[in-house]
Amino acid sequence: MANFDFDKLYLVNPCKLDDECYSRAMHAYKIIDNVIFFKTFEESIKNLDYLIATSSIESINDKRHLRNSVFLENLVEDVYKINGKVGFVFGREDYGLFNKEIALCDIMLRIPTSDSYPSLNLSHSVGLVLYSLYIKHKYEPRKKIKIGNIEKEKLYNYFSELLKEIKYPEHKKEKTEIMFKRIMGRAIPSKWEYHTLMGVFSKSIEKIKNKKN
Amino acid sequence: MANFDFDKLYLVNPCKLDDECYSRAMHAYKIIDNVIFFKTFEESIKNLDYLIATSSIESINDKRHLRNSVFLENLVEDVYKINGKVGFVFGREDYGLFNKEIALCDIMLRIPTSDSYPSLNLSHSVGLVLYSLYIKHKYEPRKKIKIGNIEKEKLYNYFSELLKEIKYPEHKKEKTEIMFKRIMGRAIPSKWEYHTLMGVFSKSIEKIKNKKN
Repeated sequence: MANFDFDKLYLVNPCKLDDECYSRAMHAYKIIDNVIFFKTFEESIKNLDYLIATSSIESINDKRHLRNSVFLENLVEDVYKINGKVGFVFGREDYGLFNKEIALCDIMLRIPTSDSYPSLNLSHSVGLVLYSLYIKHKYEPRKKIKIGNIEKEKLYNYFSELLKEIKYPEHKKEKTEIMFKRIMGRAIPSKWEYHTLMGVFSKSIEKIKNKKN
Repeated sequence: MANFDFDKLYLVNPCKLDDECYSRAMHAYKIIDNVIFFKTFEESIKNLDYLIATSSIESINDKRHLRNSVFLENLVEDVYKINGKVGFVFGREDYGLFNKEIALCDIMLRIPTSDSYPSLNLSHSVGLVLYSLYIKHKYEPRKKIKIGNIEKEKLYNYFSELLKEIKYPEHKKEKTEIMFKRIMGRAIPSKWEYHTLMGVFSKSIEKIKNKKN
């Protein structure tokens, strides 16, 4: 939960949250400190507006409406459009959620897993759901300083100069220049990667020129 | 690994794989049975063609090339285009990968996490990476039998008939019919959900008609 910026944990009739629990939570102990406890599932969902049951077991038969499910990747697109408090409901480590609990939820979410080994443990289920929500709605990739057109031109010119200095066969030159352009195009170098490459090329050109004299 | 159809596990200088290890692996014990052991990291990567180091700690400074990273969601798009054996490299539970190990890899992958709590435990890191690969490349959602045009028409006609039977105000009728269409359009009912709804509507219409007589 802390890895993905979630902090509201409701627990229904849990075991004791002892020292081991705190030591496993590491620096995320604040989530444990702020747990809200409930005696029954029905109580715990009273102040929530939209409930999403989670399971890795889907109904094979479309006739059984209860476990008809939505796919995690589709749900994460829509879930932040919901007006109100949304609760993700996870079951017991051993039995998951009971049918009567799933029936109280608005929708059932299935985490896609292998047919030959569908059951995820509780901790991984929570991790996967929160990660999927996080990257869709909360995560903003740090913008790296990318190189602009002028810098790109300079880099390509240095590369061409290097080819010239090493007496690269004239008929292959253009092809190789384009290849270099394509490699850089795919890798999208940052400003610092650009400067490092420029340094390597200019030093190489310099060394070759000095040798000649 | 078993949850997402991966089965080739390399371990470098691990602790003993004892009974606890097998009991935690549950039905995935075959992966443990087929582990390939190596004494050193260098040995373990000899027969691999492309190595992806994993970390949740990214270089803040673009100058440090070593920990410049690609984003998990971008990498999973491309990884199956690689010709050859691809290895995902995960570090120790406590320290992750050392810089010299990351340096031996072709690329570093960062799993996006909260700035305030970036470190994932090993098991969750593996789970998130394999899940992301699985849903992109291995998972095919089971096709549900959706209703066709004729069935949709019938369903909407039943709904209109129900409105007529309950003497729904004429000036609101069209709006409500469209609303029903939109709700069904978003929910995309399966064949069985369709039949169940049809049953409810036809029974309602029948009951109302019988009462009148």
